[in-house]
Amino acid sequence: MNENKKRCAIGVDFGGTYVKMARVAEDGTIGARASFATKDLKGVDGWLDEVERHAFALMADLPADMEWAGVGVGVPGFVDYAKGFVHDLTNVPGWTGVPLAERLGRRFRQIVRVDNDVNAMAVGECTYGAGQAYQHAVFITLGTGVGGGLLINNSLYRGAYSMAGEIGHVSIDMNGPVAPTGRGGVEQYVGNRRIVERTLREIDAGRTSSILERAGGKREAVTPKLICQAAEAGDELAQEIFDFVADCLATMMASVAYLLQPQAFIIGGGVSAAGPVLFEPLRRHLNKRLNPHFAEKLVIKRARLGNDAGVIGAAALTFLE
Amino acid sequence: MNENKKRCAIGVDFGGTYVKMARVAEDGTIGARASFATKDLKGVDGWLDEVERHAFALMADLPADMEWAGVGVGVPGFVDYAKGFVHDLTNVPGWTGVPLAERLGRRFRQIVRVDNDVNAMAVGECTYGAGQAYQHAVFITLGTGVGGGLLINNSLYRGAYSMAGEIGHVSIDMNGPVAPTGRGGVEQYVGNRRIVERTLREIDAGRTSSILERAGGKREAVTPKLICQAAEAGDELAQEIFDFVADCLATMMASVAYLLQPQAFIIGGGVSAAGPVLFEPLRRHLNKRLNPHFAEKLVIKRARLGNDAGVIGAAALTFLE
Repeated sequence: MNENKKRCAIGVDFGGTYVKMARVAEDGTIGARASFATKDLKGVDGWLDEVERHAFALMADLPADMEWAGVGVGVPGFVDYAKGFVHDLTNVPGWTGVPLAERLGRRFRQIVRVDNDVNAMAVGECTYGAGQAYQHAVFITLGTGVGGGLLINNSLYRGAYSMAGEIGHVSIDMNGPVAPTGRGGVEQYVGNRRIVERTLREIDAGRTSSILERAGGKREAVTPKLICQAAEAGDELAQEIFDFVADCLATMMASVAYLLQPQAFIIGGGVSAAGPVLFEPLRRHLNKRLNPHFAEKLVIKRARLGNDAGVIGAAALTFLE
Repeated sequence: MNENKKRCAIGVDFGGTYVKMARVAEDGTIGARASFATKDLKGVDGWLDEVERHAFALMADLPADMEWAGVGVGVPGFVDYAKGFVHDLTNVPGWTGVPLAERLGRRFRQIVRVDNDVNAMAVGECTYGAGQAYQHAVFITLGTGVGGGLLINNSLYRGAYSMAGEIGHVSIDMNGPVAPTGRGGVEQYVGNRRIVERTLREIDAGRTSSILERAGGKREAVTPKLICQAAEAGDELAQEIFDFVADCLATMMASVAYLLQPQAFIIGGGVSAAGPVLFEPLRRHLNKRLNPHFAEKLVIKRARLGNDAGVIGAAALTFLE
């Protein structure tokens, strides 16, 4: 390592639809970006070829005062972080048992780190975003599912076998919906699709609401974003839906707070964009569900890096240690 | 510190009825014991006088190859471990805002550590008992309430403000019984009194069972221990009760496992003495509630130090660092 040069890394955010990449400096700023669609790729080799091609392109115009320090990847599934080994990707076929860090390392001859995408985002938020001030924080991402990352004593805690932080499976009802991950996991209530289903069920049952009208009468056009807009405009059903989502999250967060007593929860992901429609009832329900010893000092913050959390966090993995 | 001498410490286990004390060597063995009743004491000063008197008596016959290294106390309530400050003891009046480590330090001129009693037990079990082999474990104690202690990266994790591990308040039903600590906390279902209440409710509703007969017809003589004996003898209601207790615990433990992915759960406290009547259904329910990635390597163990966990753990606090 050249002491006079600033480090930068390639961050790779491996999503279900797109793979996003960026050249990220050690101060968290993005120098250049690239992306490609996931669906056209031919298996793991095709993915590696594309990542290699784009990485060298992103590094082609590297400023003279910077040096390439590594490649970090966030993937949507189970990873052994210590080995950089992908066990399984939930929604991407052909990615079972892939020694990804090793295979990338052969192409780049750089430090390579591979982690779960939510862990990468959590590292990004805690290094450069809303979590910077904390040594003990819990990162939550709200989307199709609910993901989590745990900051403990200022580093990401991965548990005994690299899979800790699966906050979406924390149960809020022992007799709740059955899934392969148990019963009543909070993501069974507040995942994107569940929010929409619950809303449509209420409308089908005869509730008056502006939601369907806002969707141009198309059920398939109803999204959490649209329900949020309706709530902001005063739609009662939409507000009730967000109140319920907030209370489900508050139940899980109270359990997590009693267990870990973090300084802060950092909440990101699509649904978190709802803002006050979500955060106001969330705070209210959490205060009701927590003893004041636990509630008073607890901070709830919205994540700050938005769509860049994935690439920035993945790059940040290589700056650690 | 004399390098040639073995260290030993006074461990104090501050219980609701008795204060138990012991001289504990650094290898975890007990050299001498004392105890006194809590109810006759005159406030904090009376307690300090008694602890001082017994501690010096326990140290009077200290073998020549040992040296006194500290005093550790486990107390039943909220503590700031870093400061050795007692915020509040749930069931002992007059103990609000007591700088206990400082006051003991003035009497002993030794290292003094004060922690929550369950944390002390967890340290004991993880240093000398069932948790010795693990770097990541969760200690659970089953009694009037449900307590917890978290071993993370081989040390007890206390959270941001020294109160982490309140596992009894982890919710298993967002619409469950209301308490000052939220709704549906697992101890609302499996605390000693709840187990007895549930059993009597079933008997009152006409269930046939040998339990009341075993209690000599006296409702107030029904205890978890007696229900356990009935279960072992094949009493169906008693077995159902333990199956329910196990499933409630499994719900909470699955949530904790998804979050922290520990290597092991170590279970102690009165109800854990039930043995297979509890542990067999517990394993079964936990396997059903956990994805195999999480269930397979997870160990469930019974605590090993029994009634001595408190004094040994309290003493062990002073050997740390």
